[in-house]
Amino acid sequence: MKNLKTLFQTTPIYTLALMVLLISASAKAQIQKVEPPFWYAGMKNPEVQIMFYGKNIAQYDASVSNNVTIKNVEKTENPNYLFVTIDTQNSKASELVFSFKLKNKVAFTQKYSLKERRANSADRKSYDASDMIYLIMPDRFANGNPKNDSDAVLTEKANRAEPGGRHGGDIEGIIKNLDYISSLGATTIWSTPLCEDNDKQHSYHTYGQSDVYKIDPRYGTNEDYARLSAEMHKKDMKLVMDYVTNHWGITHWMIKDLPTKSWINQFENYTQTHHRREVITDIHASKLDQEICVDGWFVPSMPDLNLRNPLVAKYLTQNAIWWIEFANLDGFRVDTYNYSDATAMANWAKAITTEYPNFNIVGEIWMHNQANLSYWQKDSKIGAIENYNSNLPSVMDFTLQDQIGSAFNDNEANWDNGMIKFYNNFALDYLYPNPNSIMVFAENHDTDRINHTYKYDFTKYKLVMTLLATVRGIPQLYYGSEIGMGGDKGKSGDADIRQDFPGGWAGDKNNALTAAGRTAEQAKFFDFTSKLFTWRKSNEAVHFGKMTHYIPENNTYVYFRYTDVKTVMVVFNNNAKEQTIKTNRFKENIKNFKSGKDILTGKTFDLATEITLEPKSAVILELE
Amino acid sequence: MKNLKTLFQTTPIYTLALMVLLISASAKAQIQKVEPPFWYAGMKNPEVQIMFYGKNIAQYDASVSNNVTIKNVEKTENPNYLFVTIDTQNSKASELVFSFKLKNKVAFTQKYSLKERRANSADRKSYDASDMIYLIMPDRFANGNPKNDSDAVLTEKANRAEPGGRHGGDIEGIIKNLDYISSLGATTIWSTPLCEDNDKQHSYHTYGQSDVYKIDPRYGTNEDYARLSAEMHKKDMKLVMDYVTNHWGITHWMIKDLPTKSWINQFENYTQTHHRREVITDIHASKLDQEICVDGWFVPSMPDLNLRNPLVAKYLTQNAIWWIEFANLDGFRVDTYNYSDATAMANWAKAITTEYPNFNIVGEIWMHNQANLSYWQKDSKIGAIENYNSNLPSVMDFTLQDQIGSAFNDNEANWDNGMIKFYNNFALDYLYPNPNSIMVFAENHDTDRINHTYKYDFTKYKLVMTLLATVRGIPQLYYGSEIGMGGDKGKSGDADIRQDFPGGWAGDKNNALTAAGRTAEQAKFFDFTSKLFTWRKSNEAVHFGKMTHYIPENNTYVYFRYTDVKTVMVVFNNNAKEQTIKTNRFKENIKNFKSGKDILTGKTFDLATEITLEPKSAVILELE
Repeated sequence: MKNLKTLFQTTPIYTLALMVLLISASAKAQIQKVEPPFWYAGMKNPEVQIMFYGKNIAQYDASVSNNVTIKNVEKTENPNYLFVTIDTQNSKASELVFSFKLKNKVAFTQKYSLKERRANSADRKSYDASDMIYLIMPDRFANGNPKNDSDAVLTEKANRAEPGGRHGGDIEGIIKNLDYISSLGATTIWSTPLCEDNDKQHSYHTYGQSDVYKIDPRYGTNEDYARLSAEMHKKDMKLVMDYVTNHWGITHWMIKDLPTKSWINQFENYTQTHHRREVITDIHASKLDQEICVDGWFVPSMPDLNLRNPLVAKYLTQNAIWWIEFANLDGFRVDTYNYSDATAMANWAKAITTEYPNFNIVGEIWMHNQANLSYWQKDSKIGAIENYNSNLPSVMDFTLQDQIGSAFNDNEANWDNGMIKFYNNFALDYLYPNPNSIMVFAENHDTDRINHTYKYDFTKYKLVMTLLATVRGIPQLYYGSEIGMGGDKGKSGDADIRQDFPGGWAGDKNNALTAAGRTAEQAKFFDFTSKLFTWRKSNEAVHFGKMTHYIPENNTYVYFRYTDVKTVMVVFNNNAKEQTIKTNRFKENIKNFKSGKDILTGKTFDLATEITLEPKSAVILELE
Repeated sequence: MKNLKTLFQTTPIYTLALMVLLISASAKAQIQKVEPPFWYAGMKNPEVQIMFYGKNIAQYDASVSNNVTIKNVEKTENPNYLFVTIDTQNSKASELVFSFKLKNKVAFTQKYSLKERRANSADRKSYDASDMIYLIMPDRFANGNPKNDSDAVLTEKANRAEPGGRHGGDIEGIIKNLDYISSLGATTIWSTPLCEDNDKQHSYHTYGQSDVYKIDPRYGTNEDYARLSAEMHKKDMKLVMDYVTNHWGITHWMIKDLPTKSWINQFENYTQTHHRREVITDIHASKLDQEICVDGWFVPSMPDLNLRNPLVAKYLTQNAIWWIEFANLDGFRVDTYNYSDATAMANWAKAITTEYPNFNIVGEIWMHNQANLSYWQKDSKIGAIENYNSNLPSVMDFTLQDQIGSAFNDNEANWDNGMIKFYNNFALDYLYPNPNSIMVFAENHDTDRINHTYKYDFTKYKLVMTLLATVRGIPQLYYGSEIGMGGDKGKSGDADIRQDFPGGWAGDKNNALTAAGRTAEQAKFFDFTSKLFTWRKSNEAVHFGKMTHYIPENNTYVYFRYTDVKTVMVVFNNNAKEQTIKTNRFKENIKNFKSGKDILTGKTFDLATEITLEPKSAVILELE
């Protein structure tokens, strides 16, 4: 990697050349970009840092109308940028006008809207353990508008024959299938990023964004995204945006003309993160290892943003808030969360949750140790060891996912194998400040699909889903697994785990989006999933109820979720043969209940002495 | 296990019968036991609870001479016990006399000594990271006094032919070989328990003690034990006692005539601990699982002491303090630490460290997760999550041991394999309140021997020992491994890992206790170990120096231990082939040093650009 230089890394020289050119030409500035493109009146934080971009704009003096105060004007070494911070404290929604003067003469002006916020915008609710999140890769879910599959300007054109190409899925495809998603028991959608990504290949995953104020035209428009949100709200559903703070794409317009060298993290030679984020908290770590971890790039096509630069931190904070207001969002999922400066991320999360106290944000902290995960959850006592508070409400239960990926193959238990894997995971919940606000999942767009892991075994699929639906935390499903889709991460790059949802494209022979179109096998998976999560929707005991679990015996696992008024008993038999479980051991939770009705089969189990479970099966008993 | 009743469990009925018998007989009480048998004047805690044992003693009124105050007299349901708490606040060393009256008439008296403490007894130093601990099973180390191999009264007689029998090793054997132990670089001895264990078999391990105020006669006398301590102190060595709070042996005299039913934990049927101590901290655990964990018995022959009973807690606290004073101890190792009530153990440790503020106690918390280990170290922020402070200064690094047991077989590294196992272990040190006070070890009397694990490969032995000698913490070696002894835990019960040290018995053909007697192979192991730990003895950088380590690359691992005046660089090559390592990456620590001298070979390494290590080797460089 030592000699690899990316396009970007020549930029500083290019910028310098541009500066010389601009200053000598003294061309009249044309404002090419204003970001945020508009703002909102009545925010808790009344200041907004507006970035004006245009040739040589830094030589102008900015002023603003309507008695608005300019708090700060910041210039960088690139004369094409001007960062103007205004105070909107006393401003109502209005149209402002910025004037740009040279030698005391107004050279040009720029309108700027302060818009009215929605009623109760600050108090919006968010997703929590009462929700079920359906994760979609929009390019691969459904093509609702075949006319936008390619864009005249953007490089990569649609090519469904290419596993890593753009397939045409879009926002319209999601909107059209909201009823399908809802019928699954899902209440919330997290889609992978939708902003413009102009990479020449693999842009379908859209984590290399080239404009973070603009939905990629191949997915739709900003208005389409806001419409998705509105349509979902009509159905009492919630929309979670996938936000990326760590990096942009190499084709981002600002990367091509950096405001300042320190906008991104740069090394003498291309330097990639080593991915070992253990160094961040490690008291013995070398400074070099810590620097490469956070400042190293994810891949050569993704310049690593430097959030220690206050201009960058402010830019990303405002961009996030802008999307919440604009699209009326219900939450964030944040990509590669702890690849960015930890303090800057804590400030970012704090700024957002100060504006929206109930707003949930789940960070992708892909680590394999509960203490290291807990560190990153808001108010963690483990973070506090190093005087750190992430302000991040939610993390992902990657340790549970690790166990889900193997436990149901353990037909015989030993000290470490079988259902004890789950017990041991939850036994460490004391480390978390808020175990109820952890996202639980079997898979996502970066992992093997669970149906691949378990070789399309419906029996094991049921066990996995039963677990996710009933343990503490916020369950997340990955599109398509509910109809039995599989995918091997090792095959075709990540394309195999991101296949098109059958029926999402006109002309698909198999349409799993409708009951009539599903194969018998798909229907089997779907019906189970739908029944399970539809039941979950209205069951408070599995949302916020307490959990008591018992040490697994003979590869069976019993736990209870309960409130003062409702008790659910979940029983797993992970053996390949029938298992009888004596109930006496569970009397703390069974109390005076006599029987339990399995919400999946309707069968009633007498709890007086023992219950018998079929091989590799689970029951969810509502106690009566 | 349901129908198994131990001898003990019939005791309550027996006790009742005895009570009736005694009361009707009104026999004159004979004091059979007084515990502690004497005490010390001038303790920080002036109160001592003296237990008098004798037939029907509870019917007498106790009083005491010398103006000493009786603070409390406690009787239990067994009339053979009387617990008298006196206040020694104003007492100097003296002979007290207790009088026992019936109907205002002195029936009998009992002398009781308050002894003088050693000068600076309270301020005694203890073991720490500057020490190296040599762990001995005394029955298996050396038979210094063949006359005490069997005892007329105690059941199990010596039988060296029996792997699980008593072999005759004793305190005299340790005393005679202190120079051998010292020549190894060891500064401290932890021997497994030495108090009387009258079990009919396997009493050699001595964790089932039948009298905790008396050294087992087959090891020697109480005076022999105090002499061991004194001889060690002459050589600047330290003695660590193995203390057992969780259980006694089934033949303990008090178990045969329980003071109170709640002296030990009892269930309707014999109930064994499930060993899953994760339940103790688990917020979802059932009360039943928690109870069985702590109150369940270790094995049927070891009644589980109930430390929630204040009489028991006090008894064990005083017994521990008594041994410190009597034998002039330098520290404790505590067996099965978290199998006892956590609060009671915290109070126990607090009471001891209040009397002896520098006293180190290392608890056997045999768990496999750093957070769960940290929980039990004094002032842990993780313990604080549950408002718990163990007051236990030191824990054992079982997670490191887990890694030591496999990493050096990983000739090729991947994401999780090879030297990264060690890196990841130390990367979690932030969880510990005091990483320097963790005991590091490859093996002990309950695990496979490291030479078995690594198939007697001297190369791997050297890697293991180099690691133990140079990482943070207190290194502990297990007797015999330094001459290449192996042992498979799975073979002959635990006897294979507890074989006799060759040369410890008169007539042993091979005497590895002397240079002349060692085989060439034994000498190879011994000489390396001796050189390494003798060097360690005087190197502050590896005692209390800071540690900086670097993410392993290509299965090599580099770390530094350093103070303001001294830097040690440790480099491991875990590959089966030679490896060259560029030094530029380590400039944070190499600073202006030019070269490093390997303390093992004397070879000097130039640090200007790169260093080359032989296959499967390590160097310890003192930087110059």
